[in-house]
Amino acid sequence: MTGRIDAQLAFLTEADKLKSVLRATTLCNSSRHENAGEHSWHIALYAMVMAEHATQPINIDRVIKMLLIHDIVEIDAGDTPIHGDHDPVKIAAIEQAAATRLFGLLPPDQAQSFRALWDEFEAAETDDAVFAKSIDRVQPVIANLETGGRSWVDYNVTRDQVEARVGTKVARGAPALWEALKSRIDTWFAAHMAGK
Amino acid sequence: MTGRIDAQLAFLTEADKLKSVLRATTLCNSSRHENAGEHSWHIALYAMVMAEHATQPINIDRVIKMLLIHDIVEIDAGDTPIHGDHDPVKIAAIEQAAATRLFGLLPPDQAQSFRALWDEFEAAETDDAVFAKSIDRVQPVIANLETGGRSWVDYNVTRDQVEARVGTKVARGAPALWEALKSRIDTWFAAHMAGK
Repeated sequence: MTGRIDAQLAFLTEADKLKSVLRATTLCNSSRHENAGEHSWHIALYAMVMAEHATQPINIDRVIKMLLIHDIVEIDAGDTPIHGDHDPVKIAAIEQAAATRLFGLLPPDQAQSFRALWDEFEAAETDDAVFAKSIDRVQPVIANLETGGRSWVDYNVTRDQVEARVGTKVARGAPALWEALKSRIDTWFAAHMAGK
Repeated sequence: MTGRIDAQLAFLTEADKLKSVLRATTLCNSSRHENAGEHSWHIALYAMVMAEHATQPINIDRVIKMLLIHDIVEIDAGDTPIHGDHDPVKIAAIEQAAATRLFGLLPPDQAQSFRALWDEFEAAETDDAVFAKSIDRVQPVIANLETGGRSWVDYNVTRDQVEARVGTKVARGAPALWEALKSRIDTWFAAHMAGK
């Protein structure tokens, strides 16, 4: 039993490093950039509150677990900003290696089940994963709307880009949420573009 | 539907403030104090990994949800350090008012179900709540062991105090975990006391 608990604690202690991985978005009060640990908490809470808006029947308990581990690979791979330029093939390879190392710290049975859940999230094919991906895209929109479009400004994002990189993903899993966000986003972009 | 989503987003946006509530413990790399948002993520992950060590049958999905919302009241009430001096009656009253305000931002049905789950956690009577409380006490022990006893030093904590405020709670819900931690804690206190 001790060896098993030691392996579990080794994983959980390594996971602490996610609190030092910074994202492009800031807190809603603009005080600092958000880290991937607190982001993971926030979107698990988003999923818990917003489950009823899933367009397909989902298992919210699986979705929450998926979201709790979805960014763990960023401990090795770093954050990939939604609106940044990056090579998706290269990033995917780095994240695969990270998943092997990090989930590999767990006892073998858990290493396998955690990895399977992460693979499912990444593949974005099951209803649970599609909804989880939608929720992962909603929270940064709110952070941007609360902070004067902070990361949209930082990354010179256009309204079309928000539609392509955020809207399509949110609408796929939670169309009612995208409907609710769209008018807020349109208002911000109209005001921001008018001021330029 | 829009009014309902607006209420849900108002709660989730207010919840962002939990990322600015600082705790007595630091990150495992000692770089800064931990905040209550990232702490909530970490212990939900702890619960997910450590569920098998619960001494009674639990519903891990309910435990995880409990842990995701357990510290929300700290947005209004602030953190109460485990080893700090405080008036538990006064703190409880402030936290009750905080729960009323914060969960009250949600649509009425969710306000009621989230509040019931938080009340259950606070009461620490059901098997799910007892296990959730155990897990909430395990993670700071690891943070202390990783940082040279950081908050134990800051708060002049004795080995007896750790037993009373941490050990009894961990052992109640997850005795195998407390067994595994005890020898690490004893080693630290022996070394630290020898150096004094």
